[in-house]
Amino acid sequence: MNFCSHCGAPVTLRIPEGDDRSRYSCVACGAIHYQNPKMVVGCVPQWQGKILLCRRAIEPRYGWWTLPAGYLENGETVTEGARRETLEEAGAALHELIPYGLYNICHVNQIYLMFRAQLNGLNFSPGKESLEVRLFEEKEIPWEDLAFPVIEQTLARYIADRPQGVFPFHIEDVVRRMSRPSAEGG
Amino acid sequence: MNFCSHCGAPVTLRIPEGDDRSRYSCVACGAIHYQNPKMVVGCVPQWQGKILLCRRAIEPRYGWWTLPAGYLENGETVTEGARRETLEEAGAALHELIPYGLYNICHVNQIYLMFRAQLNGLNFSPGKESLEVRLFEEKEIPWEDLAFPVIEQTLARYIADRPQGVFPFHIEDVVRRMSRPSAEGG
Repeated sequence: MNFCSHCGAPVTLRIPEGDDRSRYSCVACGAIHYQNPKMVVGCVPQWQGKILLCRRAIEPRYGWWTLPAGYLENGETVTEGARRETLEEAGAALHELIPYGLYNICHVNQIYLMFRAQLNGLNFSPGKESLEVRLFEEKEIPWEDLAFPVIEQTLARYIADRPQGVFPFHIEDVVRRMSRPSAEGG
Repeated sequence: MNFCSHCGAPVTLRIPEGDDRSRYSCVACGAIHYQNPKMVVGCVPQWQGKILLCRRAIEPRYGWWTLPAGYLENGETVTEGARRETLEEAGAALHELIPYGLYNICHVNQIYLMFRAQLNGLNFSPGKESLEVRLFEEKEIPWEDLAFPVIEQTLARYIADRPQGVFPFHIEDVVRRMSRPSAEGG
């Protein structure tokens, strides 16, 4: 951030009066531009025990497998956002969306909220952000080719919870892994 | 938003190629400035059956009662944020933070995440954003003087869940109420 989005004058980083951390502040009009984490909403779409994954047609992680997920938009609920992303990326409609996990990805200022969900049927197809969409049996999940650690953590938890048939809502942190090539998106 | 925060040129609202909604886009450098909901994190702090509330020393809703809550900051987890807000507004430390409810407040582009939590003790005092902090028995809760509908919904749900001793994680929408004077914050 270099300029004030309100008046166009330069901004500087300074601690506003009464605050305790640096904010981009306008040297002319005084506007303070707060920056906050963004929410990503997505789901684990399920069909008769199989899990739907999408192969990414966009960077970062072009060609890697992921769960449907994307930035929550202004004006929509978290559930609407998860439905929209699944429709956009996998052409699939959902029912029974149940909140499942929240993931703190502090190093990229993202909070993921993941649902469990049931596919309405076998009517799915890749959207423009996906190369391929398919259902995976548990033993087929491409663990080595998952796009982001948050996807790996969500699926690992889901697979671990499944034998009990109990899926408690949970909060986990996703930490940067030095052994992987870096990519945005956790 | 009037100017590009990257290069300082004017922005216009237009639908970027491949997108499906209007975004502020720079006429000079082409930067697209996405706007997304902000997360608010807070809690229902409990001590031996009583609930801690804060009376606001800031607008909106100066003088009205609220639960500790505020914007999640970059770089912090949702749990850290709820702890920080409780420390800032009520001078109180917490343990046993358990995710309780998520509230969609679409008309102000806010998502509230509320925890249940236990106070570490009776060591609390108003921070600079609070006029007063005190514990309330259930029958003393000032329902008519609560700052925001989301606070009312969280407390109503908590009180309703308490007899069963079971507090399922839930998602609710908070809708604008025409019968109240309008205020930001849902």
